[in-house]
Amino acid sequence: MKIAVLPGDGIGPEIVAEAVKVLNALGPQFDLETAPVGGAAYDVAGHPLPPATLELAKKADAILFGAVGDWKYDGLARELRPEQAILGLRKHLELFANFRPAICYDELTAASSLKPEIVSGLDILIIRELNGDIYFGQPRGIRTSELPLFKGAREGFDMMHYSEPEVERIGRVAFEAARKRGKKVCSVDKANVLETSQLWRDVMIRVGKDYPDVELTHMYVDNAAMQLVKAPKAFDVVVTGNLFGDILSDEASMLTGSIGMLPSASLDKNNKGLYEPSHGSAPDIAGKGIANPLATILSAAMMLRYSLGLPAEADRIEAAVQQVLSQGLRTADIYTEGTKKVSTIEMGNAVVAAL
Amino acid sequence: MKIAVLPGDGIGPEIVAEAVKVLNALGPQFDLETAPVGGAAYDVAGHPLPPATLELAKKADAILFGAVGDWKYDGLARELRPEQAILGLRKHLELFANFRPAICYDELTAASSLKPEIVSGLDILIIRELNGDIYFGQPRGIRTSELPLFKGAREGFDMMHYSEPEVERIGRVAFEAARKRGKKVCSVDKANVLETSQLWRDVMIRVGKDYPDVELTHMYVDNAAMQLVKAPKAFDVVVTGNLFGDILSDEASMLTGSIGMLPSASLDKNNKGLYEPSHGSAPDIAGKGIANPLATILSAAMMLRYSLGLPAEADRIEAAVQQVLSQGLRTADIYTEGTKKVSTIEMGNAVVAAL
Ligand SMILES: CC(C)[C@H](C(=O)O)[C@@H](O)C(=O)O
Ligand SMILES: CC(C)[C@H](C(=O)O)[C@@H](O)C(=O)O
Repeated sequence: MKIAVLPGDGIGPEIVAEAVKVLNALGPQFDLETAPVGGAAYDVAGHPLPPATLELAKKADAILFGAVGDWKYDGLARELRPEQAILGLRKHLELFANFRPAICYDELTAASSLKPEIVSGLDILIIRELNGDIYFGQPRGIRTSELPLFKGAREGFDMMHYSEPEVERIGRVAFEAARKRGKKVCSVDKANVLETSQLWRDVMIRVGKDYPDVELTHMYVDNAAMQLVKAPKAFDVVVTGNLFGDILSDEASMLTGSIGMLPSASLDKNNKGLYEPSHGSAPDIAGKGIANPLATILSAAMMLRYSLGLPAEADRIEAAVQQVLSQGLRTADIYTEGTKKVSTIEMGNAVVAAL
Repeated sequence: MKIAVLPGDGIGPEIVAEAVKVLNALGPQFDLETAPVGGAAYDVAGHPLPPATLELAKKADAILFGAVGDWKYDGLARELRPEQAILGLRKHLELFANFRPAICYDELTAASSLKPEIVSGLDILIIRELNGDIYFGQPRGIRTSELPLFKGAREGFDMMHYSEPEVERIGRVAFEAARKRGKKVCSVDKANVLETSQLWRDVMIRVGKDYPDVELTHMYVDNAAMQLVKAPKAFDVVVTGNLFGDILSDEASMLTGSIGMLPSASLDKNNKGLYEPSHGSAPDIAGKGIANPLATILSAAMMLRYSLGLPAEADRIEAAVQQVLSQGLRTADIYTEGTKKVSTIEMGNAVVAAL
């Protein structure tokens, strides 16, 4: 089984190294091949997603991704910035279904900025569409306006866009996922203002009829942003578009207080996928050896389960992570008094030992 | 001074009635004229914003607005739904600057779903652009796709759009507001993906140079949604576009745990404005006499301060509200043990008495 390993920027290399250790500890069955991505790839190859990296990602059975982005690339033209690597991988590999669980671990409930009774036991799954919406819609650009009111002024514009088949396929992913969980799907849109959302809602309602065992509700995105703060446990599966999903999945992950623990998966229609931690590249702490590798290690577990057909091995990794938490080991981001603060490498070693 | 009173739907009439009582208690200087809006207007005039209501709003010095929306209008075509009234008023009256304070009252800190140390003393101001963005961009619609990939399928599309003068004018409003507060502006965009945001950011940077005494920072919207949960007190003034502002201002108001307390103002360039509570029409509790009228009463205070040049009267209302809170009076939404639960009308009467 070939795994493309793309560490990226910031803390990416450090946390991916620990996940690789964990994979290797499971046995020799994985053929791991590393390639640069993001700013690191720009530095060596002049592009955040060089052809060789894209090729490797295409031919691999799954991709383990760290994180991209660093302030030092802020001055580059947009198409050369690190973020383009992840957008390009999602698009070229048709990774349209983003799974972002927001789970509150019992041991870490206290780290949340929300009251324990609001988040303890939280287990929701945000499913975000990744290949469409205003991220990729055309036309887009900055030009001189021809509108009577603004004639001659600069204007920026981006097209939000969804077609019926795109909504249908992410809808089915959400309903199938809900069947294996709490059997509730909340579809989030802004159908009171946006035509795209009106289409989205129509299609969700139609597709939902094929899943009579799953409860479908609809919520406006502004209300969803509120309900996530007020009563997040009322949700089970949330399905939404690329833009709203970007915002709400980050909000949801922060509720848990331990975004350093949260993995994510981006899947194509055959369950080939890219796996990455929900957090970013955190350049401010890069190289200090204090980053939390658990989100990446748990992303590797998701990879074994969803793309590589190794659910037992995935369970083993997750149990090992649970065990190090029970042992009281904590990286700085989840440290609280009375627990033992460990480095990135110590945390990785502890998970390997627990395996 | 002529005030257009537009109670609207759901709890709108109940809460506006209390604010009207408070205005009348200040003296006879206000010429209040009421007109139907939203679903209530559709019922009597076949349109959520009938010409007579729009006329009244145009000729008034300020508008006191309740709330619009009720599930019973869900079946109507979009252009006839209650929400169109508020969108139409914003657009026709060029109310481009939406002020949405998120304030955590000491007496009500416990009502928040966030830990007291995260929200106590919270006082941030979200300034949302209201006349542009994907709310009004063209083209928009649902049609049969001509894209090779989706040919023949239905597609929905909406244009996000901002021109330089639109960004500049809301930017100046934000910098001016920050000058009177904590002297910090955080501009929220998604410039790593959207061209509209790139223009937005460029313009904010340019305009910011005219306000060297105000600190300008930039944040991506996904990160802003996280930081609001993690450390909301780090913000002072947040300025953003119509769509991101819709989401973030609702999220921010929910942090306080007492959205029933939060007023809002939507101003044109001459400080004529529409004033409404941040919460919605809550049709589920309409007619029960339990809605919290304080957000509407505080909206009336904002109206006196911003549009009618009566800051002393605004102060008096705000002090009266503070007093009823100190007296322990609470409507159901902010009730906690040890306080006294009162009805909508009792709360309004108590504010009048405190005046
Ligand atoms: C880096 C950025 C382009 C990306 C996105 O907006 O999708 C990130 O925020 C994410 O959620 O993976
Ligand atoms: C009712 C709706 C159209 C409106 C909006 O999206 O602007 C509301 O959510 C608001 O924030 O005032």
